[in-house]
Amino acid sequence: MSVLTQLADALHDGSVEVVDLTAPLSSETPLLELPPHFGQTARFELEEISRYDDRGPAWYWNNFRTGEHTGTHFDAPNHWVTGKDLGDVSGVPVGVFLRPAAVIDVVDRVEADPDFLLEREHVEAWVDEHGPLPAGGWLLCRTGWSSRTTQQDMINNTETGPTSPGMSADCARWVAEETDLIGIGVETVGTDAGAAHSFDPAFPCHALLLGAGKYGLAQLQNLDQLPPTGAMVMASPLKIVGGSGSPVRVLALVER
Amino acid sequence: MSVLTQLADALHDGSVEVVDLTAPLSSETPLLELPPHFGQTARFELEEISRYDDRGPAWYWNNFRTGEHTGTHFDAPNHWVTGKDLGDVSGVPVGVFLRPAAVIDVVDRVEADPDFLLEREHVEAWVDEHGPLPAGGWLLCRTGWSSRTTQQDMINNTETGPTSPGMSADCARWVAEETDLIGIGVETVGTDAGAAHSFDPAFPCHALLLGAGKYGLAQLQNLDQLPPTGAMVMASPLKIVGGSGSPVRVLALVER
Ligand SMILES: Nc1ccccc1C(=O)C(=O)O
Ligand SMILES: Nc1ccccc1C(=O)C(=O)O
Repeated sequence: MSVLTQLADALHDGSVEVVDLTAPLSSETPLLELPPHFGQTARFELEEISRYDDRGPAWYWNNFRTGEHTGTHFDAPNHWVTGKDLGDVSGVPVGVFLRPAAVIDVVDRVEADPDFLLEREHVEAWVDEHGPLPAGGWLLCRTGWSSRTTQQDMINNTETGPTSPGMSADCARWVAEETDLIGIGVETVGTDAGAAHSFDPAFPCHALLLGAGKYGLAQLQNLDQLPPTGAMVMASPLKIVGGSGSPVRVLALVER
Repeated sequence: MSVLTQLADALHDGSVEVVDLTAPLSSETPLLELPPHFGQTARFELEEISRYDDRGPAWYWNNFRTGEHTGTHFDAPNHWVTGKDLGDVSGVPVGVFLRPAAVIDVVDRVEADPDFLLEREHVEAWVDEHGPLPAGGWLLCRTGWSSRTTQQDMINNTETGPTSPGMSADCARWVAEETDLIGIGVETVGTDAGAAHSFDPAFPCHALLLGAGKYGLAQLQNLDQLPPTGAMVMASPLKIVGGSGSPVRVLALVER
């Protein structure tokens, strides 16, 4: 039997399940906050066109405004100057939109330290336990941060500024240059740690991964429902011509 | 070997391919035109936030405004008054986002008659040739209309108004009430024919399918790259709380 027929059957009988990794999109959706002299990503806003009324008697629909990097979203290489010529979001090869995932769980460490940074050693320990990273796959980092659903809890400002977990510059360089991963996925508002403006390079996940033609996924949820290996990630950004990224519905296929 | 491992391998070795069924999203993307006294779906517009400049030295990104039903998009049941209480786009069960497809080709008939309407008989003839419709799957209708990429060609106004192919009210009732299909996908700006405002009921694909808790996909491309049976459709709308639909990146998995 062909693999797609088997997949259809498995979805039908529940032996493969679809898990939603996406944060709800509304005017409450938490946003990245940059220093005020920089341009900012827009809060998601619906504008009603009609609701079974004079403006459209049988139909309800909306226009909306948002940021390419608002809510659960996909980062394309040209989002960063290092990836300027490595492709916009409409040009990402479509094969990228269905890829295997490795899921690393660092919830305990983040509970102890909200500035926790994932290091190469943590990923190597994961490999010792679970086997090789999936070639061409995502590394999804479960921090527990998705339980913070308000702007304040998500950004977690302290004396030193935004305080949320991420990846060290060394680890980002290793992922970008020495692994076959196509990108990383995180639960925070962006792929970089809250303090990453002060790293060298600044915002290393953005600078190094996008500069290597790789991708990012931010503001994921429900990573606790994924196994460490074997899940497939469906993440298909909008085909925005010249876009640097897109809000996205991220799903995972999981064997039960 | 597990089905997801087989799928990952098949994607890796090219025996399963991902095909992009999505129209590019830009200010040129064709739009539905309703009579002027009704509210209208917004043209897609990018607003640059920064481009490696003072507003963000190392990064490029945009905000954007669009309609839920602009470009390649997904219709949720509450888009129509008949489906008012049958669910918003954020509540669509996520299993819907990966489903098998039947692809029916009526390009020749549409070439002869741009007002061509798909009838139950055409679908039954397809079933005679290709076997049963996929349970819980999409019926994708290839009309060739996607070769019309400008507003004018897509809407194709004549003396009688917008002139584009679709489905008869009888066929829509049959799909809605007597088949296991979850919805239909089309190449035109909406699931209904250009003349469907004058059908009984008006806009029957919207009224009857959404009223049966089913879904719609509009402005698809590249349906010529799909086999009549065996493709799987990935179509995951944004998780817009209370939304009636969403622009979507539609992809198909195809066995080579
Ligand atoms: N960290 C950033 C700095 C500048 C611009 C964007 C970001 C993001 O995180 C993003 O891509 O959401
Ligand atoms: N036909 C319509 C009439 C009214 C509102 C929307 C539509 C659509 O086609 C749509 O959903 O794109």
